[in-house]
Amino acid sequence: MELTDMLNKSLERYNNYKEMNLNLDMSRGKPGSDQLDISEGFLTSVSEKNDCFSENGFDCRNYGILEGIAEARRLMADVMEVSADNVIIGGNSSLNMMFDTIMRDMFFGNIDSKQPWSKLEKVKFICPVPGYDRHFSICQKLGIEMVNVKMTNDGPDMDEVEELIANDNSIKGMWCVPKYSNPDGISYSNEVVRRLATMKAADDFRIMYDNAYVIHHLSETGDGDKLLNIIDECAKAGNPNRIYMYASTSKVTFPGAGISALATSTENINFIKGYMNVQTIGNDKLNQLRHVRFFKDINGVTEHMKKHAEILRPKFENVISILNKEFDGTGFAKWNEPKGGYFISLFTNNNCAKAAIQMAKECGVTFTAAGATYPYGKDPADSNIRIAPTYPSINELITAIEVLCVCIKIVSIKQMLNK
Amino acid sequence: MELTDMLNKSLERYNNYKEMNLNLDMSRGKPGSDQLDISEGFLTSVSEKNDCFSENGFDCRNYGILEGIAEARRLMADVMEVSADNVIIGGNSSLNMMFDTIMRDMFFGNIDSKQPWSKLEKVKFICPVPGYDRHFSICQKLGIEMVNVKMTNDGPDMDEVEELIANDNSIKGMWCVPKYSNPDGISYSNEVVRRLATMKAADDFRIMYDNAYVIHHLSETGDGDKLLNIIDECAKAGNPNRIYMYASTSKVTFPGAGISALATSTENINFIKGYMNVQTIGNDKLNQLRHVRFFKDINGVTEHMKKHAEILRPKFENVISILNKEFDGTGFAKWNEPKGGYFISLFTNNNCAKAAIQMAKECGVTFTAAGATYPYGKDPADSNIRIAPTYPSINELITAIEVLCVCIKIVSIKQMLNK
Repeated sequence: MELTDMLNKSLERYNNYKEMNLNLDMSRGKPGSDQLDISEGFLTSVSEKNDCFSENGFDCRNYGILEGIAEARRLMADVMEVSADNVIIGGNSSLNMMFDTIMRDMFFGNIDSKQPWSKLEKVKFICPVPGYDRHFSICQKLGIEMVNVKMTNDGPDMDEVEELIANDNSIKGMWCVPKYSNPDGISYSNEVVRRLATMKAADDFRIMYDNAYVIHHLSETGDGDKLLNIIDECAKAGNPNRIYMYASTSKVTFPGAGISALATSTENINFIKGYMNVQTIGNDKLNQLRHVRFFKDINGVTEHMKKHAEILRPKFENVISILNKEFDGTGFAKWNEPKGGYFISLFTNNNCAKAAIQMAKECGVTFTAAGATYPYGKDPADSNIRIAPTYPSINELITAIEVLCVCIKIVSIKQMLNK
Repeated sequence: MELTDMLNKSLERYNNYKEMNLNLDMSRGKPGSDQLDISEGFLTSVSEKNDCFSENGFDCRNYGILEGIAEARRLMADVMEVSADNVIIGGNSSLNMMFDTIMRDMFFGNIDSKQPWSKLEKVKFICPVPGYDRHFSICQKLGIEMVNVKMTNDGPDMDEVEELIANDNSIKGMWCVPKYSNPDGISYSNEVVRRLATMKAADDFRIMYDNAYVIHHLSETGDGDKLLNIIDECAKAGNPNRIYMYASTSKVTFPGAGISALATSTENINFIKGYMNVQTIGNDKLNQLRHVRFFKDINGVTEHMKKHAEILRPKFENVISILNKEFDGTGFAKWNEPKGGYFISLFTNNNCAKAAIQMAKECGVTFTAAGATYPYGKDPADSNIRIAPTYPSINELITAIEVLCVCIKIVSIKQMLNK
């Protein structure tokens, strides 16, 4: 019988891999060492006193300039395709800016709130799934209930979103990764962006718009998916304060030493500055300058991102090609072929993901935990596996994905044969 | 009449200063440009790939190591005279770590809390006065009521502190700047430290122990006031979790690009890490490495601080010498002569500070606003003036202090003559 043959062959392969005593970690969406090397010049881009002054002569070594220096705001505005006036530069972690935003809205409410969110009986956020576990962790920590909405090829299912919001006024927010989404690699269509901007929602409803991969294309040309400007769309729709957009250079220069940015309406900016003014003495301006000196302008960033793409493209291509080879005609898995971002999202048959990942682990290959891409770590279908191809070498990657495929095959066939 | 003569002479001097069209800002406790220049080598202390690895081989360019790299924790532990295991390294702002601490205790409570502080009917903090306006701003923003306690030459009046806490269980915290306090320049005696550690207080009572000037001596030798180790004292007294101690390199390397640190009990550290893990991807480790490479160890820091002292000593000496010259025998003002820190605290007769600062302002010399050193910006006696001698040049400083003295004389004499 064909399935039994395939199972036996897969078990044989699995045992061979097991004998290799592998120790591979595929769980983290972080840049590889070769990617970090392309930013080495960044380290010395501010190397003497004369480099320390902003374009308007401010000594960036000293205190001051809460919202970030003008040229850094401009650079990150160009990255996010928004106006520099709408940008605040943060520290090295956009996640920290997101956390602060939600904490602020919980504790104080935002400018459109009648009361702090924490005073409400219940606060809910819409979470397109699969999504990013660190977004979900923030909600969980702060006691915000998460409501799953499925992703389509155009972004979140907007019929579902609109219906949920229309019927539940405890929904105060929504997570979005609008370009090359984590983990699906899907970019939102113009219609999805427009519906996010125009849909009816509570005055103080906020979209946490994590534009983490806005310039992280895989193409040779540096071109990629385009997003409609949601801040403009929200303003046009009379919902100017709805969007908090985030980006960072964590996967542009260095994950440990980048700069982050928040873009939002002027009214939100002023409100946030009133809070930041109490919270901090201001973020690291020398690191802002390092970025400006290293890239000069958005063209410098675009050229730099092509170098990242050169390193990442073969990794993504290898994964896709192995998946095609292993699963073609089997129906055991489907997956997206993203044009950018950091992940490939793989869907097994229902109730197979956890077992496959466990098998891979027993073979020395660690993948992102099954369920991690869903709120509360629970994938209702037990089907999604997040593949992070960036960190391992190509050879490691090939082995790891082959192991994964073998494990999925074994688990899937066993499931079918038990039926 | 002698007072009238002095008034007329002072008015004449005031008018002369007014004609000089001065524009001096004495309001900010920040390092001068010459102080920043002594850290220039810091900028290139991490300048190539090989510099980016921690002592245990971790690539600091990438994600990871929430609590900071071991060698940075050791360096800041030596600065604070605590154990490295008790230290978490933050971003560039210790104020931000303080804000996060109180926000966390408000929203979640701390490990010894029965409920979040924000759920209590009232939360109060003891504030030794005069003190640091940014500490007070955090309390005000988060709705914490501040209770003034007077400073003695040994630190806060502990009789007052103990009585307040014994009679009011809504007191959950206290601000302290234990060495070269802002603005008085007073260092806490061993007895004060011991009483802070041993006094009866709520289980979840916390001392925000801002050790901002722990190594900021003015002496030529690099020696200065010594503090008893309060973390040890608290542990001995059975109150191990009482202290959150803070320090930073803002006034060691660069105010805009230093590193901050929090020292506290192991139990607190673990609790805080559980929160940080959701809040951030980790702080800038390359900047931690820059500090370690630049200073090598605590001896490097000590030598470096002597250079700061060399620049600051004549500034402090000039202020003290002018104050002596102008006020000797008048009774119009008294002041401290600190052996370190960033400020000289001047006390006028009651109800004179605001008017004197206003007069100075009209003459082009801006001082820290009267009242700023008290909670809610209200100095009940209208007497305290914070002098920040560090930022201006010596010539500017001399002029500014002379202007201030003249203004204080005019206001004081007018007040006496009107009696």
